[in-house]
Amino acid sequence: MFRKRLFHLAQLSAVGLGGYYAGQNKEKISNLFGEDSITIDGKRIKNMPGLPVFGTVSAATPYMESGGAKDRISQIMKYGFPGLDNVRSYDDFVLSYDRRNRVPHWVFEHLTKEHVAKNDAVDRSKCDFQPDESIHPFFRSLNSDYKKSGFDRGHMAAAGNHRLCQKHVDQTFFLTNMAPQVGEGFNRSAWNNLEKHVRKLTKVYNNVYCCTGPLYLPRREADGKSYVRYQVIGANTVAVPTHFYKVVVGEAPDGTLDMEAYVMPNQRIPDETPVSSFMVPPETVERAAGLLFFDKIHRSKLNRINGKKV
Amino acid sequence: MFRKRLFHLAQLSAVGLGGYYAGQNKEKISNLFGEDSITIDGKRIKNMPGLPVFGTVSAATPYMESGGAKDRISQIMKYGFPGLDNVRSYDDFVLSYDRRNRVPHWVFEHLTKEHVAKNDAVDRSKCDFQPDESIHPFFRSLNSDYKKSGFDRGHMAAAGNHRLCQKHVDQTFFLTNMAPQVGEGFNRSAWNNLEKHVRKLTKVYNNVYCCTGPLYLPRREADGKSYVRYQVIGANTVAVPTHFYKVVVGEAPDGTLDMEAYVMPNQRIPDETPVSSFMVPPETVERAAGLLFFDKIHRSKLNRINGKKV
Repeated sequence: MFRKRLFHLAQLSAVGLGGYYAGQNKEKISNLFGEDSITIDGKRIKNMPGLPVFGTVSAATPYMESGGAKDRISQIMKYGFPGLDNVRSYDDFVLSYDRRNRVPHWVFEHLTKEHVAKNDAVDRSKCDFQPDESIHPFFRSLNSDYKKSGFDRGHMAAAGNHRLCQKHVDQTFFLTNMAPQVGEGFNRSAWNNLEKHVRKLTKVYNNVYCCTGPLYLPRREADGKSYVRYQVIGANTVAVPTHFYKVVVGEAPDGTLDMEAYVMPNQRIPDETPVSSFMVPPETVERAAGLLFFDKIHRSKLNRINGKKV
Repeated sequence: MFRKRLFHLAQLSAVGLGGYYAGQNKEKISNLFGEDSITIDGKRIKNMPGLPVFGTVSAATPYMESGGAKDRISQIMKYGFPGLDNVRSYDDFVLSYDRRNRVPHWVFEHLTKEHVAKNDAVDRSKCDFQPDESIHPFFRSLNSDYKKSGFDRGHMAAAGNHRLCQKHVDQTFFLTNMAPQVGEGFNRSAWNNLEKHVRKLTKVYNNVYCCTGPLYLPRREADGKSYVRYQVIGANTVAVPTHFYKVVVGEAPDGTLDMEAYVMPNQRIPDETPVSSFMVPPETVERAAGLLFFDKIHRSKLNRINGKKV
């Protein structure tokens, strides 16, 4: 009985978050039930079954530096939180922090053409990697942890995905958004190619939702048993993930949804390797990460997964 | 600004849980502010600064099979949740489940003389190890994962700590409460000795709060770098922790609080090794586990840590 009650509590807690955002979109959400289409700004927009439209609508509204913060978060997290452990929200991305490994569990982004377009007002070279003081000092990664480790401070939310204003790109340099990545041959080539691929998806899809994070995958060793083994660096023992994943959903202009999932080993990869060769079934990533991606979208509602009709 | 808002949200969510429990103890909690003592059942009880008394008071009330569920949870978790990831509450213990490793992050218990006393109505041999179907199948550990692995299904909340009724001991056999432990020389000896030690603390303390869980500690290897390495077993790749911890707080009859913290390697340990040789500073466990234990008690309010005056 106690158990039932705590489940109820957990649900309440989840609903609490949802409710908060829902409250911000009350008018729009009220239109989602039992109607075939809604009218916004005098335009009639088709209401796809199972596809809340408020995110799409918000994306169509012009960017404003101040205001609309809650709308932005609800837009980024439109299709569900992969997990709820130590969630941190920045202006243009949201992450869950793994206090044991001092790297994120997952980082969520929402991209459009506008977010990834070249913008002369934004200068990446002005950004500094900085610790996030909102994390308890026991669990906070520092620049000194990475120094002389041989690993890059690898962005999970890519700097190039947050070009609307300087503050957005600045925030991608918080160490909460980093994990140790092999630099040459990975962060600066194969992984970068995957990031570019995701940005290119904004040419095809109105809205691209991208979830990125680390994996610690087991390997069978000589004794026939499977082991997880990963290096830790610095005084704060920051975990060096064995692999990284990206799970991406694109919303096409006609409202259809496509999903792609990638896993890349954190190692030197020949630069010419096509990103498609790293595609994996999304469930593989979910099982390995202990997370559920886009769980507000029933998989049967997807049009394609990794380019194949569902 | 978005960030501030989500922090606020996170706080609300935390307060949400606290508020829920607080609501159940409204009368008692109202006495905690600005008064030196409170009167309960005609007895005047000193109100220690920073020491909410409702847990103690509840512990003094007789056990009832039905009812009082919320009080029981608030009592177990009196001094704070070490983390909030996938919390599950059972009738006599509370845990947080690590979906990536398919073992708990932490398991919290509250023990008194009554909970650990021999009770002929309770029979451990009637208990079955069983998967917890409240966990998503992707992340659920099964008996088949442990079978032929060579590891015991090691209780985190010890069966012997939950002897008030059969249902309580039954629930300690859920696989959510298990982690793979070396059987001979560890689970059945050194670890068992530590569990017995904790039970014995109920002779000295009115209330004993015990938090138990796994660790994955790094080791320096031949290349001079540090690595975390642990086996995973079965189709669901259940993690075999390298170590286990217990962090315990005892409430003495005069209200003083003592803390003990232990870390034991998950390996054969000579049976005669005294449990005291596994004592470690509590911060060590916190840093390694990514958790904060008893964070409602300021460490300066403790009387002793590991037997030494604070």
